[in-house]
Amino acid sequence: MQVFKATLAYDGTDYAGFQRQSNARSVQQVLEEALVPIEGGEVTVTGAGRTDSGVHALGQVASFSLTSAIDPSELLGALNAVLPEDVRVLNVEHAAQGFNARFSARSKVYRYRIFNARVISPFERRYALHISRSINLQQMKQAAAALEGEHDFATFQAAGGNVRTTVRTVTRSEWHERPLEGGGRLLIYEIAGTGFLKYMVRNIVGTLIEVADGRRSPGSMPELLASRRRGSAGPTAQPHGLYLVRVDYDTAAPVSFS
Amino acid sequence: MQVFKATLAYDGTDYAGFQRQSNARSVQQVLEEALVPIEGGEVTVTGAGRTDSGVHALGQVASFSLTSAIDPSELLGALNAVLPEDVRVLNVEHAAQGFNARFSARSKVYRYRIFNARVISPFERRYALHISRSINLQQMKQAAAALEGEHDFATFQAAGGNVRTTVRTVTRSEWHERPLEGGGRLLIYEIAGTGFLKYMVRNIVGTLIEVADGRRSPGSMPELLASRRRGSAGPTAQPHGLYLVRVDYDTAAPVSFS
Repeated sequence: MQVFKATLAYDGTDYAGFQRQSNARSVQQVLEEALVPIEGGEVTVTGAGRTDSGVHALGQVASFSLTSAIDPSELLGALNAVLPEDVRVLNVEHAAQGFNARFSARSKVYRYRIFNARVISPFERRYALHISRSINLQQMKQAAAALEGEHDFATFQAAGGNVRTTVRTVTRSEWHERPLEGGGRLLIYEIAGTGFLKYMVRNIVGTLIEVADGRRSPGSMPELLASRRRGSAGPTAQPHGLYLVRVDYDTAAPVSFS
Repeated sequence: MQVFKATLAYDGTDYAGFQRQSNARSVQQVLEEALVPIEGGEVTVTGAGRTDSGVHALGQVASFSLTSAIDPSELLGALNAVLPEDVRVLNVEHAAQGFNARFSARSKVYRYRIFNARVISPFERRYALHISRSINLQQMKQAAAALEGEHDFATFQAAGGNVRTTVRTVTRSEWHERPLEGGGRLLIYEIAGTGFLKYMVRNIVGTLIEVADGRRSPGSMPELLASRRRGSAGPTAQPHGLYLVRVDYDTAAPVSFS
C-alpha cells in the first residue's frame, strides 16, 4: 500500500462539511467516490480538519492509501477530472507509512472574512460575512491578541464538545484589513494554533464582533477565558466566512517511496 | 417624473445578460420586476452596457423614471431587499431630466480575469478563465498596447454586428498580474474606451491569448486591425472572465431635484 497526502481547496457552500454524513453530501464522500475507479475498490479518506457545514477550505489535507501504483501527478489529474468543480485537488504527494492527515497534523491556520461595506458584493455573498455597520477594528485587534498563547478555550467550545482537554495553544490571532475597490473594507481574521475545538473559531469571531460593536470590552478576554462558560461568549459566527487555510506537518518525517 | 441613476454589481452566471430576453432571465427583468411594487406599475430600465450572457458587472449603470417621490437611499434599500442576491444595487442618485444610462455614457471600463495556475481555485471557477499552461505576459502587454488610440475595430466585432461605424477610441489597454496565494498568478486585462462593439473585448482577449501562446506575433495588431476581417482574429474568450467595471458620464450635467 502506498500512502498519499492530498491538498484540497473547496467551496463549502453545498457541502455538509468535510466528514462523511449518512444523510448529506460531504467532501469526504465525493473524494472517496472519485477514488473508487482509480483503486478499483473502496478507499477511506482522512481529513486533517472536519470543517463544519458550509465552511470552505483553501488548504485542507487528506490522507489515504492505495494499492494502485499511480504517480502522484497522474492521480491529481485523474481526481480533478471526476470531482465536482467546487472541490479541487491542488497537490498530491507520497507520504510516509503511518502518515495520517488528522493525527500527524502539528498546526492549522484558519481565516475568517468580513465584508464591511454598505452593500455586499454579489461575488462575496457566499464567501464573507456581511456587516454594514461601522466596526471598531482596533478593539477587535486588541481582544484577538489576548487569545494568543496556551489557554483553556472551553468558553469557545460548542456545547456538547467531548474532548480530553480544552487547553490549546494559539500561536497567532490577528486582524488585517484591505480596502475594497467599491468602498468599504475587507476584515480578515487569521488564527493559527496546534488544535481547535468544535466551533472554536466561529465562536471567537462571534465574540470579537461584539467587541467591535462596543457590547463587550476589548480587555475582557482573560476573564472570559477563565469563566469556561460557553454562555458567556458571543454567538457562533456564520460558516460561510470561515476557511481552513493550511495544515502543517513535521517536515522531518521520512517519506517512503516504496 | 424623477429620473434615477443606479449603479449595480451582478454575478452574471445565471443571467442571459443585462438586456431583457423573451425566453431567459435577464438583469433588466429582475430590476424592472423589483421596481413594480415601488412604482405601483411598470417601469422600463435602460442599462449603460448590454453585457452578454454570463458576463459580470462591478459597476453597471441603469437609468429609469419614477412618479413616486422616493428618497434615493430608501430606494436602494427597497431594491436590495427584493432583488436576488446575485444582483446588488450599490448606489442610487437623482439624475437630470433626459439622463439616459446608455446614451449619456462617455466611457466604459471592462476587465478580463485569467487564472493562470495548474489548478483553478474553486472560488474562481465562475469568475475567471482558467489557463494552466505558461503564458508570455510581456508579449500580451505589447500587443494590448497597440490597441490604444482611435482605430477601426471591425476585426473584433462579432459577425452580424450592425452599427453605423466600427471606429472606436480605446484610451487604455493593459495587462497587470497579481501573484496567487496558492501559487500561479492572476492576469488582469483592463480596457477603457468611448464605446465597444459586440463581443469586442472577448474577441480581443481571445486574440491576445494567441499572442501569449506564441501563435501570433505581438507586433501583428496594426495589420490585424487593418484587415477588418473577424476571421483573422482569435476566438471569442469565454464570458465568465469578463466584467463591466465602470461607466463614466459628464459630471458637468446639471442634476434636477424637481
